[in-house]
Amino acid sequence: MTYTAINFWEKLSKFDDHWSPRVIAEMNDYQFKLAKVQGEFDWHSHADTDETFIVIDGELEIEFRDGKVKLSAGEMFVVPKGAEHKPVAESECHIMLVEPKGTINTGGASSHLTAQNDVWV
Amino acid sequence: MTYTAINFWEKLSKFDDHWSPRVIAEMNDYQFKLAKVQGEFDWHSHADTDETFIVIDGELEIEFRDGKVKLSAGEMFVVPKGAEHKPVAESECHIMLVEPKGTINTGGASSHLTAQNDVWV
Repeated sequence: MTYTAINFWEKLSKFDDHWSPRVIAEMNDYQFKLAKVQGEFDWHSHADTDETFIVIDGELEIEFRDGKVKLSAGEMFVVPKGAEHKPVAESECHIMLVEPKGTINTGGASSHLTAQNDVWV
Repeated sequence: MTYTAINFWEKLSKFDDHWSPRVIAEMNDYQFKLAKVQGEFDWHSHADTDETFIVIDGELEIEFRDGKVKLSAGEMFVVPKGAEHKPVAESECHIMLVEPKGTINTGGASSHLTAQNDVWV
């Protein structure tokens, strides 16, 4: 049987669009997604789940209504279920998201930034 | 409100023992754990869950009964539920595990390598 490592850099080289997460792996009913982000995302929340952000490259700021957290490469943060948040990246930033399969990137708020789910790379 | 990034390197600097995962974050009923590993772990499997390995630093080999996969920094692999596997690291390697809370590191096989759960760093 052939077992193949999932390489973040190789996967990231295969797409360029921003705020469009690509699935790279599934664990039970959870997915690992890579995304390239730049600029300001929409304010949103996920009513039913926490959401994990891991920065692979660059810097990401996650704003909350009452504060914010800045993440660099090698750092992570778990946004609690129901917490309104807005990811912002001044320069292009590469992140990995971990969340249940079916989680919509804009949460309960549909917009032009709402991405299709289950797009693998 | 103060929000604090979880920094892998800062967390890794706080322990030295091998094969003893430390919890650094929880997302719903899942945990993110860092571990320093070196040498050969036991053959084991997890009957009820997949298990995710992400290499932060160094190289990890995961052996299966019918093959193996080699992971370097920036690579991940999801071991399927029920698959017998044996992690091996020739030199010290730093990894992140993602798995449901309560998952035992040696799976269904108890040994001197069985680590205590829910130890945070």
